[in-house]
Amino acid sequence: MPVISDKGRLMPESPIRKLVPYAETAKKQGRKVYHLNIGQPDIKTPKIALDAVKNNTIEILEYARSEGSDQYREKLAAYYKSKDITITAKDIIISTGGSEALLFAMGTVADYGDEVIIPEPFYANYNGFATASGVKVVPVVSSIEHNFALPPIEEFEKLITPKTKAILICNPGNPTGYLYSREEIRKLADIVKKHNLFLISDEVYREFAYDDAKHYSIMREASIADNAIMIDSVSKRYSMCGARIGCLVSRNKEVIATALKFAQARLSSPTYAQIASEAALETPQSYFDDVIKEYVSRRDLLIGELENIDGVRVAKPKGAFYCIAELPVKDADDFARWLLEDYELNNETVMVAPAAGFYSTPGMGTDQVRIAYVLKKEDLRKAVNILREALKVYPGRK
Amino acid sequence: MPVISDKGRLMPESPIRKLVPYAETAKKQGRKVYHLNIGQPDIKTPKIALDAVKNNTIEILEYARSEGSDQYREKLAAYYKSKDITITAKDIIISTGGSEALLFAMGTVADYGDEVIIPEPFYANYNGFATASGVKVVPVVSSIEHNFALPPIEEFEKLITPKTKAILICNPGNPTGYLYSREEIRKLADIVKKHNLFLISDEVYREFAYDDAKHYSIMREASIADNAIMIDSVSKRYSMCGARIGCLVSRNKEVIATALKFAQARLSSPTYAQIASEAALETPQSYFDDVIKEYVSRRDLLIGELENIDGVRVAKPKGAFYCIAELPVKDADDFARWLLEDYELNNETVMVAPAAGFYSTPGMGTDQVRIAYVLKKEDLRKAVNILREALKVYPGRK
Repeated sequence: MPVISDKGRLMPESPIRKLVPYAETAKKQGRKVYHLNIGQPDIKTPKIALDAVKNNTIEILEYARSEGSDQYREKLAAYYKSKDITITAKDIIISTGGSEALLFAMGTVADYGDEVIIPEPFYANYNGFATASGVKVVPVVSSIEHNFALPPIEEFEKLITPKTKAILICNPGNPTGYLYSREEIRKLADIVKKHNLFLISDEVYREFAYDDAKHYSIMREASIADNAIMIDSVSKRYSMCGARIGCLVSRNKEVIATALKFAQARLSSPTYAQIASEAALETPQSYFDDVIKEYVSRRDLLIGELENIDGVRVAKPKGAFYCIAELPVKDADDFARWLLEDYELNNETVMVAPAAGFYSTPGMGTDQVRIAYVLKKEDLRKAVNILREALKVYPGRK
Repeated sequence: MPVISDKGRLMPESPIRKLVPYAETAKKQGRKVYHLNIGQPDIKTPKIALDAVKNNTIEILEYARSEGSDQYREKLAAYYKSKDITITAKDIIISTGGSEALLFAMGTVADYGDEVIIPEPFYANYNGFATASGVKVVPVVSSIEHNFALPPIEEFEKLITPKTKAILICNPGNPTGYLYSREEIRKLADIVKKHNLFLISDEVYREFAYDDAKHYSIMREASIADNAIMIDSVSKRYSMCGARIGCLVSRNKEVIATALKFAQARLSSPTYAQIASEAALETPQSYFDDVIKEYVSRRDLLIGELENIDGVRVAKPKGAFYCIAELPVKDADDFARWLLEDYELNNETVMVAPAAGFYSTPGMGTDQVRIAYVLKKEDLRKAVNILREALKVYPGRK
């Protein structure tokens, strides 16, 4: 029998994958499961985007341009300008989701065995893209005590080796909800400039910045024009996760020329999704205002309720729609499984994402879970109540 | 300034990319350019697929399942059964185009520095997927003298090293149009079994088999259930290149489990395109009958006309919609550029794909071009006439 590659064996599984069968069994047994574990918003996709696809007049569903159409990229550049990010269409490569943009970025900056420093906890799929690209993730710990702020820049400095090619951040952060300040971004700019590294910033949650906090993009740091690579996606911005359209943005022409070669190899991103994404740019500001208002009130409800649970510590998120909660349990993996397999309150239970999968350092985050506040408030309140009652009787409490 | 990866620098450019500016200039100068260089069919997409997208009732464009929905994969399994390929939905991972399925396959079978043997000339993007995956392409030459039939199996045997992980074929072949016989597939089955290799077969042109020749899939060889990985796509079958839906198929459960991890990292394939692809499975047989009839008559016209040009040799294709033609020129790259830059017949010219980009061995195919017969017959006739007249006056004739 032929042998699977080491790479294939090392590819990580999704941190919640092993919980899925338990959730399915719970549902089969008639229990309702509140999903606090996923980043699939319940917010409606802007009608203007949905209608553009419904009203398309395509007769031959042809390949799109590998880098995306000039028209879409020009409109995107105008959108970025409205966010104080001054770039041109030529600085953009349209990708198949933010996922593909991350793969392009890793391939562009790193060779087999090279290292990328990432503050942990981080979006679990960074591990997958790194493994697929033969790149080693070097974690730098950010802590719940400090609300998951940027770790001291000396901690990054200590980890830089000749193999280090980039620092990768997610801003606002999945799974932390942390929004980096202008000062933090500047510290990162200084260090990548000093060591000739790339700074890759996943900014797919840009719109989701709360409490009058302003998102500060790495693209606003003129000093790192050649170092900065921004990753973006329509998935969260327009609740269009199923479109699979994102982009890679850089003012470094060599980065764009290289990413374009990766893009050419796979020919093009999906045509229908590009129609939807281009139309979505016309989404009125009122849509975002409503969405942000909804998320803020969900966050406030969630954090308020969580803080009231004995033994629970939570970092208040300023962006995105996740938080990391520390629970009074020995093993959050076991607790998450137990919730689905052995617990019910009025025939309902909850599914959470154990946070260990968002850390690269073994043993980190074992008493933490990621909670996504993508449910309506009524359900969120019920879900947190289930969590509260469950923690009272869970046998693995610490 | 930070440094681009070696991988990024080694990523190949599309073989026709450098010709594109010349084609654009020709068009700006008012010359009509017949595109014999691309695999974008002019055939209409089945209405049933287009209508399914137009009539969709999506309100939240959600992530699809990473492996594709059970429903779509079950229907796909039924389609394969109709082609004498007996597999189940569990043997299928839906991918974002055949391109992504090839990336998944390379990642699943090969580590950095491993080797994959590919008969050349081959689809140029195999080089890109190999480079992106850190895999070395080892070519085995198939020749125009033998119509690009499978090279003697001893030639493969000579190239197998401990690093060899797979043999990759395209059947029917892009760019050769060659359709492998049952006997050829069996020889490949024997050799991969003997050496514990994977056999990856790109069968995206399955429907395009002419002259009563039957396509013989590697999936029909029961003896290599654990070795065989089939790559497929809706792009050519339904003239839906812009959908970006394909799949990876294998009976080897470890292959599927591993490919699934790559699929999970990128979350899902595009939702709208999956709606179109599922609906396309209901395309009536008459659609394919008409398409095949059209391609056969185009091929017959093209080959007949090419054979009548002094000094041109052509391998008659039995499948797909390409042929490789050997021209009486010293350098097909230069000829292709010259056609666009310096030649016109009644203010018209043609664009062809120089074939060297489809070979991995340096110096091979330098007097060959790939011609795609994706134009209607009237245009095809004019295009070949331009080629004939151009060859009479081209200064670089050999």
